[in-house]
Amino acid sequence: MRPVRYSVAASLDGYIAGPRGEFDWIPNDPSVDFASLFAKVDTVLLGRRSYELVRQQGGSPWAAGTRVYVFSGTLRPEEHPGVTIVRDDVGSLVASLRSEAGDGEIWLFGGGSLFRSLLAEGQVDAVEITVVPVLLGGGVPLVQPGAPRTVLALTGTRTYPSGMVSLSYTTKRPNA
Amino acid sequence: MRPVRYSVAASLDGYIAGPRGEFDWIPNDPSVDFASLFAKVDTVLLGRRSYELVRQQGGSPWAAGTRVYVFSGTLRPEEHPGVTIVRDDVGSLVASLRSEAGDGEIWLFGGGSLFRSLLAEGQVDAVEITVVPVLLGGGVPLVQPGAPRTVLALTGTRTYPSGMVSLSYTTKRPNA
Repeated sequence: MRPVRYSVAASLDGYIAGPRGEFDWIPNDPSVDFASLFAKVDTVLLGRRSYELVRQQGGSPWAAGTRVYVFSGTLRPEEHPGVTIVRDDVGSLVASLRSEAGDGEIWLFGGGSLFRSLLAEGQVDAVEITVVPVLLGGGVPLVQPGAPRTVLALTGTRTYPSGMVSLSYTTKRPNA
Repeated sequence: MRPVRYSVAASLDGYIAGPRGEFDWIPNDPSVDFASLFAKVDTVLLGRRSYELVRQQGGSPWAAGTRVYVFSGTLRPEEHPGVTIVRDDVGSLVASLRSEAGDGEIWLFGGGSLFRSLLAEGQVDAVEITVVPVLLGGGVPLVQPGAPRTVLALTGTRTYPSGMVSLSYTTKRPNA
């Protein structure tokens, strides 16, 4: 089975982007080795807004050749070559990706709305939040409100020189 | 100067109480030594809702003899002997408590609305969040939305056997 891992940077008050979608609060910490963190990722899942934010940045943070699935009821597939647009039945598509052979990892890149849907479907295996030392006071939440209560098990922590702290968890079943 | 420290347990998604005000998601971890954590606290600050939650529990988590200030525009002082009800001018009262002589600490017990007001007034010196390994999907936010962006400096982390992780910070000036 190939694990789905929700891996994002978040403010201490639980936002993954500021009130105007901004990311300027995330320090550029050279000690974070993204290449090795995501070496096993061969598949990326994104909601529509996260996908549009990535496109605005002009380049994607994952390796060339990575399979990319964007979950959206409105984007037109013919306008987005190179990615697979998934309109509905999010849970069964992700279940099928997870059951593929191999040890590649599936990176749930964002955002909080897709994370909520996949939590509700029991399709998230691991959660890794890099807590940035800032309070934003508003913005895009880590989890869109309405997700089921989900118990986690801590698997590790790591502190970076910039004051960021990564907290890694596996998920237990909802309401466990 | 006596520091104001906002010290609370929160879910990974940033809630200090569940959607119905519940705390049943906070593990009773015997390795957390509350007595020594709060040994220097001689003053406690609470918003109205946090105060009412403490009263419902039937006992307060702080030592006898602690000075208690409750910030509320509606509670009637004569009905709440033993605590000081503060109706307005939250910032100047707290500034005056901070400037008192001695090395006692001021515990900002909760909740997110009082924390927002005091952040905006620059009256919070330290933030200590004990992150509980759970996603709640909704509830009472750690910081009420609308707080100013506040940069923090990490001062320490501690991992407990239950999987809780305490993250300690000092505050820098808003928008620094």
